[in-house]
Amino acid sequence: MGILAVGSVALDSVKTPFGQEEEILGGSATYFSIAASYFTQVSVVAVVGEDFPAQHIDFLQKLGIDTAGLEKKPGRTFRWRGEYGDDFNTARTLDTKLNVFADFSPRLLREQRRMEYVFLGNIDPDLQRSVLEQMEKPKLVACDTMNYWIDNKPESLRKTLSGIDILLMNDAETRQLSKETNLIRAARAILGWGPKTLVIKRGEYGVLMIDQKSAFGAPAFPLEEVVDPTGAGDSFAGGFFGYLAATRSADRAALRKAVVFGTVMASFNVSEFGPRRLACLTYPEVEARYREFRELTFFEEL
Amino acid sequence: MGILAVGSVALDSVKTPFGQEEEILGGSATYFSIAASYFTQVSVVAVVGEDFPAQHIDFLQKLGIDTAGLEKKPGRTFRWRGEYGDDFNTARTLDTKLNVFADFSPRLLREQRRMEYVFLGNIDPDLQRSVLEQMEKPKLVACDTMNYWIDNKPESLRKTLSGIDILLMNDAETRQLSKETNLIRAARAILGWGPKTLVIKRGEYGVLMIDQKSAFGAPAFPLEEVVDPTGAGDSFAGGFFGYLAATRSADRAALRKAVVFGTVMASFNVSEFGPRRLACLTYPEVEARYREFRELTFFEEL
Repeated sequence: MGILAVGSVALDSVKTPFGQEEEILGGSATYFSIAASYFTQVSVVAVVGEDFPAQHIDFLQKLGIDTAGLEKKPGRTFRWRGEYGDDFNTARTLDTKLNVFADFSPRLLREQRRMEYVFLGNIDPDLQRSVLEQMEKPKLVACDTMNYWIDNKPESLRKTLSGIDILLMNDAETRQLSKETNLIRAARAILGWGPKTLVIKRGEYGVLMIDQKSAFGAPAFPLEEVVDPTGAGDSFAGGFFGYLAATRSADRAALRKAVVFGTVMASFNVSEFGPRRLACLTYPEVEARYREFRELTFFEEL
Repeated sequence: MGILAVGSVALDSVKTPFGQEEEILGGSATYFSIAASYFTQVSVVAVVGEDFPAQHIDFLQKLGIDTAGLEKKPGRTFRWRGEYGDDFNTARTLDTKLNVFADFSPRLLREQRRMEYVFLGNIDPDLQRSVLEQMEKPKLVACDTMNYWIDNKPESLRKTLSGIDILLMNDAETRQLSKETNLIRAARAILGWGPKTLVIKRGEYGVLMIDQKSAFGAPAFPLEEVVDPTGAGDSFAGGFFGYLAATRSADRAALRKAVVFGTVMASFNVSEFGPRRLACLTYPEVEARYREFRELTFFEEL
C-alpha cells in the first residue's frame, strides 16, 4: 500500500516578485509527499540535520505522511536559496548548502522494502539504484533527475533508467539527456533506454507525456497569480504518481488522468510560498479543479 | 460569403537547420489565405511589385484564392530574409525591404466591401482601420498585430482594437501590449479595450484563447520534424478564421474547434519550406489530423 518517496527535505529561502521567505520547509520529497498524500499513503525517505524544526515533522505527520524514514543526522539540514524574476519558468539559485544531504545514503526500513510504488526524487543515480536494490518487488517505479546528474554521472543515470517505468523531467533536461533538440526525437531516444513512459514537464506551458505508441499533451492551468513556483514539478509528480498508486493502474487512461491530477496539484502549489497552499487543500477542491481543467481543454469531436 | 484577408505578400529567403531557400512565396496574407482556402473562399488584398513572379499568382488562383485585390505596383516586391536556429520559436530577421509594401494603402473592390468576414494581418493599425471603414457591414473581424506597431503606434492600435472581435497575437506581444507579465491579467486588460476574444499564440507550446468568461488551452501538435516555422502563426489564423467563416458561427464550441483547426494547419505548414506543404493538402488529411489532435489531448472525466 502507498508510495515510497525518496528525495530531499530542505529549508528554502525564496524570493519572488511577490515577496521573500526565509528557511521555509522545502525539498523535492516534501512537495512530492504532500501532493501525493491527497491520494494515498506516503512514506518519505530523506535526511535532515539536528537543526530541522520539529514543527515541520509534526506538519508532515498531520498530513498523514509516514516520517519513520526521515533520518536525523548530526549536522545541518540541506539549504537552498533562490529567486525568480518575472519569468517564473527558471529559478536562479543563489546558494546551495548540501550539509547532511551530501552523505545521504537511503536505507529502507523493513516494511518500506515491501512497498510497491516507488518515487525516486532527483538524487544521485547511484543512490536511486541502491534504493531499487533494497526493494523486494516494486510494481511501478517513477524517477526524476536533474541537469547535474546528466552532466556528471550520465552512465550511472543510464543504468538507473534501465530499471524504471516512468521518467519525469523538464524539457531542457530531456534535450540535454538525449542530445536531441526535437522533443519527440528526444523522447524516442530516452524511451529506448528503459522507461516505458516519459513525462516532460514544461513549466507554465504544461506537460507532454510520451510512450512508444502515443503522446498526450496538456497545457498548464492558467493562473492569474503565481506567487512562488518552487516545488511545482515535485507537486506535479506527487499528484501524478499519487493517483496511479491510489488506483493501482498505469494504463493509458489512468496515465492521462494522472497527468491532469499532477497539473492540478502543481497549480495549487504555486499560488502561495512554499507548500502552504498545497498542504491545506480538501479533496473536493482537487476534484473541482480537475473538472475546471477538463472544461479548459475540452473541444468537440468533428 | 468568404473572407477578406488583408496583409503582406512577400518573397522570403529563409535559412533553418534543415536548409535554405531563396525568394520563395511568403507573407502573412499568403499563409493565411492558403490555410483558410481549405474552409472557405478567400479574397486577398495585398500589394506586390512588378518583379512578382506570375507563377505565384497562378499558384494562389489554383488554390481557389481570389487575387483580384492583389495590386501590382511599380517597384519591387516586399522582401524578408531571416533564419532560425535550433530554437524554432524565434526568427532572426536578417533583412527587411518593404519596397512597394511601404506605401500599401488597401482599397477594396466593390464586392469586397460587402464581405462579412475580415482578417486584418499585422499591417499599420491606421490601415487596418481604413479597411474596416470601407466595409459595409462586417459580421466578424479578426486582427493580428506585431511588436513594431505596439512600440510605434500604440494609440492607433488601441483605436483599431476597439472595433474588432478577435485579436490574435503571440505571447510576447500580449505581454508587451498590456504591460502585464501574467498572461491572464494581460488578456483581461486587452479584452477591456474592445476585442471579445483574445487568441494567444505560443509557438511550439500551443495556444491560449481567453474571453470574458472562460479560457481554452491547447498544446501544439507535437512534430518529429519542424523544417521551417515561417508562417505558422498566419496559417494558424487561416485555419482558425476559415473554420469560423465556413460555419458562420463564433460561439464557444465553434471558437474552440477553430483553434484546433488552426493548430492543425500550422502543424502541416511547418513541415516543409514556405507554404509548400500547406498548399498540397486534402481536406481528409486536415480532418484526420483534427482527430489525431483530439486523441492527443483527450482524457476522461472524473
